[in-house]
Amino acid sequence: MTTLFADRTCVEAVEEGTSLAPKFNQAGLIPVVTTDAQTGELLMHAYMNQAALVKTIETGEAHYYSRSRQTLWHKGATSGLIQYVQQLLIDDDQDCLWMRVTVADSGASCHVGYRSCFYRQIPLGTEAVRENYPITLTFTETAKTFDPQLIYGDTPNPTQL
Amino acid sequence: MTTLFADRTCVEAVEEGTSLAPKFNQAGLIPVVTTDAQTGELLMHAYMNQAALVKTIETGEAHYYSRSRQTLWHKGATSGLIQYVQQLLIDDDQDCLWMRVTVADSGASCHVGYRSCFYRQIPLGTEAVRENYPITLTFTETAKTFDPQLIYGDTPNPTQL
Repeated sequence: MTTLFADRTCVEAVEEGTSLAPKFNQAGLIPVVTTDAQTGELLMHAYMNQAALVKTIETGEAHYYSRSRQTLWHKGATSGLIQYVQQLLIDDDQDCLWMRVTVADSGASCHVGYRSCFYRQIPLGTEAVRENYPITLTFTETAKTFDPQLIYGDTPNPTQL
Repeated sequence: MTTLFADRTCVEAVEEGTSLAPKFNQAGLIPVVTTDAQTGELLMHAYMNQAALVKTIETGEAHYYSRSRQTLWHKGATSGLIQYVQQLLIDDDQDCLWMRVTVADSGASCHVGYRSCFYRQIPLGTEAVRENYPITLTFTETAKTFDPQLIYGDTPNPTQL
């Protein structure tokens, strides 16, 4: 698998070159930003290991590494909400991926049931910091797109405190 | 500062509540996805510590934590390319932020000189994996928006191998 990726021997080649030389962190993971290819909405932020990246490239369907389950994770395998990759990009120092996708069925990507994982907004301004303890979020999505209990049943919730 | 944030005592409150209870990783950091508020383009992926998050909320201008320089980083302080925060959101388990910004001047956000840090695309499909060693990237931006040497001079390059 390592032959698919170039060695990271020179900053200029990493930043300006055309060889894929991804940097996986100490846990063997690289962060992935997943946006809706049509709207630009940020759907989720997750991680891939080497195997997930190769699977994603090969199949054109999003594969991640689940940190909570510690396993390769074919997004949508349980829920049916497959993410079809329209475009896959990498950043300047090659330590982050951007995946532009279209999502099957309802188009949702969040295990809580919302379309996007980012369904709450943080207030801005000095008054936000001065007057609220703790700072109060507002919801930007008003309804869930599916019932997580129906889809995931008794599967453990991936959220960790 | 801790009184600004709620304690993370219950999964339901973290996912469905209205109290800001961000999760900072073992290094004290939370990943931040920064997109262009108009186009949805992913500009950069970086990190905040607690101080950077509070500064961003207070001022409405993007502050990050620079891992390479190990310091609070007011984006644009050197280059003039300030990021004005239009909307700041947090995800389901509150371990990632989404910042929708407009950028001053040329609108660029990448230290290499491109508009977005994500200026190279990874090919998809089984032939991409089978025929190329290493996998070959293609550029999606064809020209730089500024000359990094003029802006940053001899400042050390943040890219780490």
